[in-house]
Amino acid sequence: MSTPEQPKTGKRRGRRPAGQDTRTALLDAARVEFSENGYEGATVRAIAARAGTDAAMVNHWFGSKESLFAQAVLQLPFNPQDVITELLDGDVDTLGERIIRRFVTAWDSTAGGTFPALVRSLASHDQAAIGLRDFMIANILDRIMSRIEADHPQLRATLCASQLIGIGMARYVAPFEPLGSADVETVAAAVAPTLQRYLTGDLGSVSSN
Amino acid sequence: MSTPEQPKTGKRRGRRPAGQDTRTALLDAARVEFSENGYEGATVRAIAARAGTDAAMVNHWFGSKESLFAQAVLQLPFNPQDVITELLDGDVDTLGERIIRRFVTAWDSTAGGTFPALVRSLASHDQAAIGLRDFMIANILDRIMSRIEADHPQLRATLCASQLIGIGMARYVAPFEPLGSADVETVAAAVAPTLQRYLTGDLGSVSSN
Repeated sequence: MSTPEQPKTGKRRGRRPAGQDTRTALLDAARVEFSENGYEGATVRAIAARAGTDAAMVNHWFGSKESLFAQAVLQLPFNPQDVITELLDGDVDTLGERIIRRFVTAWDSTAGGTFPALVRSLASHDQAAIGLRDFMIANILDRIMSRIEADHPQLRATLCASQLIGIGMARYVAPFEPLGSADVETVAAAVAPTLQRYLTGDLGSVSSN
Repeated sequence: MSTPEQPKTGKRRGRRPAGQDTRTALLDAARVEFSENGYEGATVRAIAARAGTDAAMVNHWFGSKESLFAQAVLQLPFNPQDVITELLDGDVDTLGERIIRRFVTAWDSTAGGTFPALVRSLASHDQAAIGLRDFMIANILDRIMSRIEADHPQLRATLCASQLIGIGMARYVAPFEPLGSADVETVAAAVAPTLQRYLTGDLGSVSSN
């Protein structure tokens, strides 16, 4: 959106461009900062400064650093904060089912969206991949596991991640039929018990290492 | 290996170079043929002709088209034919455990080997990816499922594939700890029940589509 009232040249730092311009500037700045410094290294303050605005605008437009990362870099078809709140709001015994339904519904709604790009990025070991991994572990899996009383929370979280990534591969990257085009009910019925066992069930013999 | 006895120029077709030369020529020819025509389209006869030898040499060196594909293109750390024979030689109730053990042991032994390259290839929708998918479905999953009395064999096979690919992602592509470096016993104990349910257990409500 153009803002003819604003000077086209000059130092923007400390001067806030209007509305959508700020949002776009923050998205652009975030892509650069996350790419240069990884998820943990990038700060809201640095992103805001690069966008010529202040940290309060990140909260105003995105709510948090992780939501900004999710939208700017990962282009996820959901807001992680909302998803976590939604997933944790309910019986822990049906959490596996809520997770697989939410995962498939969200990515199906964008026909896979950025999922193949995220997988390519993970497979090429670039900075975005490291960011993605840090992000998923710190902001989705750890938060869910922190609400569950279970041994080996990290192992459980990564087992869930492995099944979800595999479903994403089979549905959005290199469709394996009939799983690739099975409806949400079918996928949920088949996969929910897997996730539920990984989350709260018996993992058999876990070696401590 | 050089073969100074052989003329360095001239038409090789119908004339067989010695030993390892034939094997190498077949691998090179196979990469070209599979890349140009996909797994189904490439023929043993065309590969042999391109290598300047005959189809009997493919059987001599590789046993079959699928084994040649596995070694030339996928560079799998196992011979699919041997693996299938080994997996099917035993109680169907422990097949899930045998599959996950074999998968992790084989790929661990090569520290992930070509797994990341295969994933990149799947994510880029190239011809090798289509070949890989055809290959896995026709030569591994379908053969295993043909021995199992269960409804929805294709859905079961692709569910298994999704969990195996996810384990490969978490272990060999973008390690998610502690799953990334968990020992084989731990992974087998956690994942075997998942595969076993996908193979022979209750999938819940499957919509026919």
